[in-house]
Amino acid sequence: MTRAPVIAVPSVIDAVELVNWVNEHFNEVKNVAESTSRHAKLVSIQPFIVGNNVWLRFKFTTGDAMGMNMVTIATDKAVKYILSNFPRARLVALSGNMCVDKKANAVNFLLGRGKTVISEAVIPRSTLEKWGVTAEDVAEVNNRKNLLGSALAHSYGFNAHFANIIAAIFIATGQDAAQAVESSMGITWMEPLDNGDLYVSVTLPSLEVGTVGGGTGLPTQREMLQMLGVYGSGNPPGTNALKFAEIVAAAVLAGEVNLVLALARDELARAHEMLGRAGKRDST
Amino acid sequence: MTRAPVIAVPSVIDAVELVNWVNEHFNEVKNVAESTSRHAKLVSIQPFIVGNNVWLRFKFTTGDAMGMNMVTIATDKAVKYILSNFPRARLVALSGNMCVDKKANAVNFLLGRGKTVISEAVIPRSTLEKWGVTAEDVAEVNNRKNLLGSALAHSYGFNAHFANIIAAIFIATGQDAAQAVESSMGITWMEPLDNGDLYVSVTLPSLEVGTVGGGTGLPTQREMLQMLGVYGSGNPPGTNALKFAEIVAAAVLAGEVNLVLALARDELARAHEMLGRAGKRDST
Amino acid sequence: MTRAPVIAVPSVIDAVELVNWVNEHFNEVKNVAESTSRHAKLVSIQPFIVGNNVWLRFKFTTGDAMGMNMVTIATDKAVKYILSNFPRARLVALSGNMCVDKKANAVNFLLGRGKTVISEAVIPRSTLEKWGVTAEDVAEVNNRKNLLGSALAHSYGFNAHFANIIAAIFIATGQDAAQAVESSMGITWMEPLDNGDLYVSVTLPSLEVGTVGGGTGLPTQREMLQMLGVYGSGNPPGTNALKFAEIVAAAVLAGEVNLVLALARDELARAHEMLGRAGKRDST
Amino acid sequence: MTRAPVIAVPSVIDAVELVNWVNEHFNEVKNVAESTSRHAKLVSIQPFIVGNNVWLRFKFTTGDAMGMNMVTIATDKAVKYILSNFPRARLVALSGNMCVDKKANAVNFLLGRGKTVISEAVIPRSTLEKWGVTAEDVAEVNNRKNLLGSALAHSYGFNAHFANIIAAIFIATGQDAAQAVESSMGITWMEPLDNGDLYVSVTLPSLEVGTVGGGTGLPTQREMLQMLGVYGSGNPPGTNALKFAEIVAAAVLAGEVNLVLALARDELARAHEMLGRAGKRDST
Repeated sequence: MTRAPVIAVPSVIDAVELVNWVNEHFNEVKNVAESTSRHAKLVSIQPFIVGNNVWLRFKFTTGDAMGMNMVTIATDKAVKYILSNFPRARLVALSGNMCVDKKANAVNFLLGRGKTVISEAVIPRSTLEKWGVTAEDVAEVNNRKNLLGSALAHSYGFNAHFANIIAAIFIATGQDAAQAVESSMGITWMEPLDNGDLYVSVTLPSLEVGTVGGGTGLPTQREMLQMLGVYGSGNPPGTNALKFAEIVAAAVLAGEVNLVLALARDELARAHEMLGRAGKRDST
Repeated sequence: MTRAPVIAVPSVIDAVELVNWVNEHFNEVKNVAESTSRHAKLVSIQPFIVGNNVWLRFKFTTGDAMGMNMVTIATDKAVKYILSNFPRARLVALSGNMCVDKKANAVNFLLGRGKTVISEAVIPRSTLEKWGVTAEDVAEVNNRKNLLGSALAHSYGFNAHFANIIAAIFIATGQDAAQAVESSMGITWMEPLDNGDLYVSVTLPSLEVGTVGGGTGLPTQREMLQMLGVYGSGNPPGTNALKFAEIVAAAVLAGEVNLVLALARDELARAHEMLGRAGKRDST
Repeated sequence: MTRAPVIAVPSVIDAVELVNWVNEHFNEVKNVAESTSRHAKLVSIQPFIVGNNVWLRFKFTTGDAMGMNMVTIATDKAVKYILSNFPRARLVALSGNMCVDKKANAVNFLLGRGKTVISEAVIPRSTLEKWGVTAEDVAEVNNRKNLLGSALAHSYGFNAHFANIIAAIFIATGQDAAQAVESSMGITWMEPLDNGDLYVSVTLPSLEVGTVGGGTGLPTQREMLQMLGVYGSGNPPGTNALKFAEIVAAAVLAGEVNLVLALARDELARAHEMLGRAGKRDST
Repeated sequence: MTRAPVIAVPSVIDAVELVNWVNEHFNEVKNVAESTSRHAKLVSIQPFIVGNNVWLRFKFTTGDAMGMNMVTIATDKAVKYILSNFPRARLVALSGNMCVDKKANAVNFLLGRGKTVISEAVIPRSTLEKWGVTAEDVAEVNNRKNLLGSALAHSYGFNAHFANIIAAIFIATGQDAAQAVESSMGITWMEPLDNGDLYVSVTLPSLEVGTVGGGTGLPTQREMLQMLGVYGSGNPPGTNALKFAEIVAAAVLAGEVNLVLALARDELARAHEMLGRAGKRDST
């Protein structure tokens, strides 16, 4: 989990000196940051400079917690320690939008935040035949819709509907529902194999989940995590959150296969008509 | 509300002919599309061509409903009518990712989807003084964090935390929680005025909300919309959804003022410590 | 060709009134704009509002000229006419970066600037066999490199090297070399056909070229355009620039086929070694 | 300078094993890569995984050369060495579009390519007064145009016209003109200081320049680099290219001040009329 304060300095020379100071005193800063929590462990501080502005992107492991709160508190203490040693610098905002929390963005996409997870499957030719499609049919939908369509839309979602699965699971398990925004970024990749099977994968660079803290302790949400066998602290710590991240990615994979196949079989509107209207809650 | 199928044609010449055919037969297509629903009214069909691929972005008004379902069904019928008249074209997927549903993207940011709403306020100098800040202090946080930080992150959120407010309201009022992804895109703009007051605005290009259909009829969600005075169909139809969109944007504005001020006053970590820990639900 | 001034107004209400005024007085504004040039014809004015900021994106046809200069002058006169009738608004900058000139961006990618051109070809299976590759081999390079790699890079170039061809032709023919930046945005799409042939297309949404004005009249550059049969004004006006745009796109197509094939045949490094070093100008 | 091949593996498990193998054998791979050139020194190999695809982004220092050629050749040898030890992996393309060469993109923007350079200046209040503007006037143009306008355009150029200066210098000094595309990405940041002065900076994350190799040895281009005092190999090697990068950034800074001031003084159209038409080369 990450937090990136933005700091103002008089000039780019000060910016470089600040970054050098941080690199040279990393262990000191780490001790200060980690004094605020038993679970937050500082991994790295990645600097970004634009003119007389410096972002320091603090990256922590946070055990089984999603960890935004503990990371905010640890970064607050750490950055104030840095600035007390570097009086030419001034804290502008403890969150400088390079963290990046709750916005779709390229930093998390490339460098990760929370867990980076990939889930994959091979669907046998015989199963595809039962569904009335070939591997080529399905991969074509993925190429034209999820890759080409998303390229044209300049989207952070090269996928069909990661967000549906992510939002549902986040609400059900007490995650931060607003973090579904960047947690649902990612890429679906499908390719026909030589034997007629279909390879499918989903890549989620920035899945922000936890099994302790936040809303995970609410009764229903806790029960849901218990059903999945991942409630609370793992043994060793951190393993429950990792296992949960894998479960989420597997569910996302299933969702992608489902919707891309429905499109390949031209069933999307029909399914909405049958299932959406059956509930009598649709206005059409 | 929009839906954009992706269609394969043999060549770019066919692509152009298809687009011309659609333009020439717009009224016919409109009649077919609108035969599926009392509420869906086709406004326009915007074409995009990439090689031998054509996206037709159907844009409808949908009364007080968010309308994704009715638009999917209407587009399905319309695109099949088009293709029955243009046999050289083949439907690849009813949703071609140029709609764009549930992904952050440039199409909705520039061309809109759902409602495009702007909310603004002027905060008097006297109020800012009570809070211990100047208009310049607050605008500086917005410029360095929300504009410069988001520019560097290549983000679709030039804001502090639209997503927190959007996700909360969407869950509380029975909206589609996965649409918080693109509904929370947008820009916060702040500028100090000559008299020391602070101008603040939030711009939400793609806010997808409704007051009928979907989860709006569930008991708690319905009650919440009733409290806001926007449940059900407006008079004339569509006005409840517009009013609700304005309420959401006003809440987003309040959220931005709150967080940017908290950052300017260096209160973010302290607030998390006091309020986050008080609930005993935090893992730190 | 487009130019988009950014205008400040007191509030979003004024912004909407300004846009309404412009829509209602389009013909007047058009007359004023077109009084500055024989060639510039105003097609549309597309508004964008962010808080108390308004961008008016003026779109002109410009005959055979690339037209940036004439459009700047025409927009200057038009926007001043508008503001003289709307004194609550204030011009901040004649170019407000929504034009968009000389930066890669989503506006031109989606809405176009200059010419939007697509070039396509089918490469017969027999030719591919001579080159030692199948259609699948080549399409795989395009899918994994140009689509998937560019998706991950969050690039505006879903292609191999449009920029090499665009930059070379722009310098050779007296175009504005800095406009190679956005003119080289675009997508390469390849698909194997059922008969073993390979379909290839390149889509260039924002190719900014002219055959009169700018550097086209310099001796060598003029000669180059003459060799291509497109120097000067076309008959009717505009046709030379269109023909030239098609020639550029065809060259870009050839460049893509060349490089993607070289990669599929694993020849890139070898070619650089043979040809780059032969010129004795390489430092390795 | 960087080059990033894309490699196909059977599954994500193989992808992780490949990345682990590369990390464990970095020194071996470095020796192989560096055997191809006296100047290319391998700094790091950054991996990116999407499903069963792996990009290995090789980063080298290249002395005073821009170095694309030597890096391509070194990466070719290195990646083949890797694959000879890891037969489950297959090279798809030596350039996998995560390098990223000649396209605007987030990878270079965040992680750099070529040189990352910042240039800054403070313009005294007295000078601004002579020009008839205040620091606030100029900063306002930058905020509304270069930050807000570019945010809305989803641009990689949060600047006025880096590309004009970059393209001109690249052509004049024998650089690769197509690399102006990503070299001209970057951010202009301006802020009024308390004493009425104006702080200005330009940040160029991905400036790809060299003083040996490529077109630098051509007579005119060589003369130009000699005039700047940076032709050929520096002492120690690499210093000429760094000095040249600083010169380019300083020129870009001057260009930004010039154009933003011209806009603040409302002179853009007038300047085009006077200077563009004077040359008799404009078509208006």
